[in-house]
Amino acid sequence: MDSNRFIIAAHCVNRPGIVSAVSTAIFGLGCNILDSQQFDDTESGRFFVRMVFNHDTVTLDEVRAVLEPVMSELDMEWTLRDREHRRKVLLLASRFDHCLGDLLYRWRSGDLEMDVVGIISNYPRDTYKQITMGDIPFHHLPITKETKPQQEQQITDLIEETGAELVVLARYMQILSDQMSRSLSGKCINIHHSFLPGFKGARPYHQAHERGVKLIGATAHFVTGDLDEGPIIEQDVERISHRDTPEGLVRKGRDIERRVLARAVRYYLQDRVFMNGNKTVVFPE
Amino acid sequence: MDSNRFIIAAHCVNRPGIVSAVSTAIFGLGCNILDSQQFDDTESGRFFVRMVFNHDTVTLDEVRAVLEPVMSELDMEWTLRDREHRRKVLLLASRFDHCLGDLLYRWRSGDLEMDVVGIISNYPRDTYKQITMGDIPFHHLPITKETKPQQEQQITDLIEETGAELVVLARYMQILSDQMSRSLSGKCINIHHSFLPGFKGARPYHQAHERGVKLIGATAHFVTGDLDEGPIIEQDVERISHRDTPEGLVRKGRDIERRVLARAVRYYLQDRVFMNGNKTVVFPE
Amino acid sequence: MDSNRFIIAAHCVNRPGIVSAVSTAIFGLGCNILDSQQFDDTESGRFFVRMVFNHDTVTLDEVRAVLEPVMSELDMEWTLRDREHRRKVLLLASRFDHCLGDLLYRWRSGDLEMDVVGIISNYPRDTYKQITMGDIPFHHLPITKETKPQQEQQITDLIEETGAELVVLARYMQILSDQMSRSLSGKCINIHHSFLPGFKGARPYHQAHERGVKLIGATAHFVTGDLDEGPIIEQDVERISHRDTPEGLVRKGRDIERRVLARAVRYYLQDRVFMNGNKTVVFPE
Amino acid sequence: MDSNRFIIAAHCVNRPGIVSAVSTAIFGLGCNILDSQQFDDTESGRFFVRMVFNHDTVTLDEVRAVLEPVMSELDMEWTLRDREHRRKVLLLASRFDHCLGDLLYRWRSGDLEMDVVGIISNYPRDTYKQITMGDIPFHHLPITKETKPQQEQQITDLIEETGAELVVLARYMQILSDQMSRSLSGKCINIHHSFLPGFKGARPYHQAHERGVKLIGATAHFVTGDLDEGPIIEQDVERISHRDTPEGLVRKGRDIERRVLARAVRYYLQDRVFMNGNKTVVFPE
Repeated sequence: MDSNRFIIAAHCVNRPGIVSAVSTAIFGLGCNILDSQQFDDTESGRFFVRMVFNHDTVTLDEVRAVLEPVMSELDMEWTLRDREHRRKVLLLASRFDHCLGDLLYRWRSGDLEMDVVGIISNYPRDTYKQITMGDIPFHHLPITKETKPQQEQQITDLIEETGAELVVLARYMQILSDQMSRSLSGKCINIHHSFLPGFKGARPYHQAHERGVKLIGATAHFVTGDLDEGPIIEQDVERISHRDTPEGLVRKGRDIERRVLARAVRYYLQDRVFMNGNKTVVFPE
Repeated sequence: MDSNRFIIAAHCVNRPGIVSAVSTAIFGLGCNILDSQQFDDTESGRFFVRMVFNHDTVTLDEVRAVLEPVMSELDMEWTLRDREHRRKVLLLASRFDHCLGDLLYRWRSGDLEMDVVGIISNYPRDTYKQITMGDIPFHHLPITKETKPQQEQQITDLIEETGAELVVLARYMQILSDQMSRSLSGKCINIHHSFLPGFKGARPYHQAHERGVKLIGATAHFVTGDLDEGPIIEQDVERISHRDTPEGLVRKGRDIERRVLARAVRYYLQDRVFMNGNKTVVFPE
Repeated sequence: MDSNRFIIAAHCVNRPGIVSAVSTAIFGLGCNILDSQQFDDTESGRFFVRMVFNHDTVTLDEVRAVLEPVMSELDMEWTLRDREHRRKVLLLASRFDHCLGDLLYRWRSGDLEMDVVGIISNYPRDTYKQITMGDIPFHHLPITKETKPQQEQQITDLIEETGAELVVLARYMQILSDQMSRSLSGKCINIHHSFLPGFKGARPYHQAHERGVKLIGATAHFVTGDLDEGPIIEQDVERISHRDTPEGLVRKGRDIERRVLARAVRYYLQDRVFMNGNKTVVFPE
Repeated sequence: MDSNRFIIAAHCVNRPGIVSAVSTAIFGLGCNILDSQQFDDTESGRFFVRMVFNHDTVTLDEVRAVLEPVMSELDMEWTLRDREHRRKVLLLASRFDHCLGDLLYRWRSGDLEMDVVGIISNYPRDTYKQITMGDIPFHHLPITKETKPQQEQQITDLIEETGAELVVLARYMQILSDQMSRSLSGKCINIHHSFLPGFKGARPYHQAHERGVKLIGATAHFVTGDLDEGPIIEQDVERISHRDTPEGLVRKGRDIERRVLARAVRYYLQDRVFMNGNKTVVFPE
């Protein structure tokens, strides 16, 4: 309980001996591995691993010093984190407040272990009167077709200033530019209000109603240059019937969006999510 | 228990007084309404109703005689059925036998109250060695690009000869011609191995694997001229992960296909399903 | 859209002619039935019906005047409500705020059409700093073993003063006395943090962890004198694994409790819920 | 694909260095770890691990020879299996054939990689006319209160003769004696037709109907001396409503039982299931 607890999330080209090398280094430090999951993607030839381990006295820097040569030898891309270190997160929203409100609720209740370093919206602060923001910095950054580049620059500046490690589009109804999407690759999660790849584009609940599907869903995905095509992190659905109006679907959808986005963010904050080409690897809780 | 039990399934342009007119006619016969569900589609302006009622002595013909003028006055399209009358069903299959086997199992166990009047396949009978067909007539109707019109004519003839009221494509891997699809409109249910409208076309599980979705599904729909676009009757999904291979998805998918198709057929056999433009109304059990 | 819309919820001993009598009376008023569901419980011999109907000009009083003799003749217990009339609801909470916060969120967003006439807690107001209560009256009613009768009397007085039609125990961690439970019969909904009848009593998530179940759930039920035995309105579950700690179950459980309680309250507010002995009839949306 | 593939399933008292020791031994053999999952139960102090690894030429005996001293040093209880080795399974059934039929279907279709070495029933063979048993040995072992010890001895003899590694009670409606249960500990899976711990004992669907629950379920568990209290391997549920009769629940339950039992057996056959006191550890697919 009171010991130092560390999380490694790493991936590299697969080859024999990786688990042995890493676990032996950790054992050499006198650490105990509490949890370990790995995945060997025979298609992409890549290897993914997440390990949680602890020690009473060894520090993060000592762990890093020992692991660096091992990981370098394996040509690993890796992160090492003290479990107590909370990632800095920036939340972006627009008119709808249900995802924003839910993320803040879960942050306060301890479900989401993160530091919310700011909220950005293209709507003014009083849009969110019902939500308790406390003293989280709020940035109203209005946007028009003409001012889009400048507005995105403001966002980029805020990411830099705050040191945000994750950007969450909590029903932020603006499409990021290609350049911005690429610069945020692997660090920006969006919630799309349909069960992708069905119903891309605008007004997906109206499309779903029109098509007469019997389940609706939501999809949390990494933002990439390809709109609605980013690697999927989490999805869920709910049953509907012929009685549901488009407005009823929007209402039911809010619940799905809230929980799908919250789960995706949670997995990310726990270093469970890896990009793997246009797909993801997500180690279960 | 021992009384006569009748089911009305009817639809017409909505207008006030329909429920009153029908229920009063049924009451006039001395019948007791056991179950009644209705739906008033404000978009299409159509009204749908299903009623189950019983009587100790009144016969189907007597009920029909009393209802005919009422229904005619309302300009209803309607069916009236004695609950004991089992619908005649023709099953079509190809190489995969899981849906066929499951439907036959459910028929024998009493889950599906129908008369299976025949099984048609473009594969020979010994493809289905593992399945107990009993004395259900089996028709091997091979098909090539050239013989498609003739083969479809053979199917049409069999439908006529057997008096089949429903045709079920239980993973029948041939695309029906436009003409045949239209002639079977509202009487032919197909199972598609994806959560439509995602992954239309061939090899949907491979498409799903490629896209990296986190849930896969299956869709039972009425067959129409528009391939993969028929009115959806039932859908379901199951959770998958990055560990699942395309073959694993196919395996998991078999379970979803079996239960989705069985539910759709069951709803149909109980007169719960109505076409409503390119959508359906399905009254729940 | 702009017409008057009415909802009847009624039940009586079953006998032929009920639907006919009620629908004919409604038709006689020139109203159009939009939705109608009924259930004939062959075990209890009781009949349940919910009808939604509208008219451009007819008023609630006019509808009531016409229906009264019909319903009286049928010996119906019934309610008639203008759809615009929002039911008055009193919320009770204790230390945990997730259900309370969620109900208030859904009330503000329009999911739950009700008038929240007050919040009662045995904890002081600043327990709920994170929740936007606006100007809803808050009543801090502390309770000890000795003061329980007085505290319950205060609650009873508040119900009377506010005219509350529904009392929601939103994780209110006090057991109501037998007398109070009985006086609130059919008007008080509780959320129990387990999938009843499993894990009655205290600390159900710890019990679930101890037993090693693979799904946990929550149950919304009417409060009766029999603790944990009231008629069940709604239940749901979520998958867990051997990795989940009791604390993890509590966290996952919060999500289930929120949505199960919200659904039960929503169904109630829409007159979809009937007590039927120690069970319920819930007409689906 | 054509390489030798091995699976280790092992558990021991937790201590640092286990993963390092095992993975280093495997690496020393020149093998590649394809999949590895572990769980460190901080409550019981036990460590569980499952590893899949392969090699082009190394044989099972060579692997065993190298691992034996390592595992012995760690005081491991462990199994090592060539993935091609199919476990021998004995199926027990009574009057209901849906689970038996489903397991045999999945065995033939390749879902369940096992050798079915026999079917035992207290009902005669012609009970299962609808099921394709092929040439699997069928043993009719009738049972009365008086002959129970002898009948169980016959079962025990068959387990020994066939070398069965797993016994599946596929709705076998006899309660095994304490002695037999204990002797099969960890090797015998039962399907109980309720969502345990709710509705223990007889006629659980009737109990569920009586209680008015909104979901019903099934539970696959290891058989122990404690009836209905064995470690749970898998559970699932399905939504029901007030319309469902007890017979309807039995019908819906059959589907849940089939898939829950099939999943539990599948997990077992893949060495994913460990007993952990009165609970289980199940590594996900």
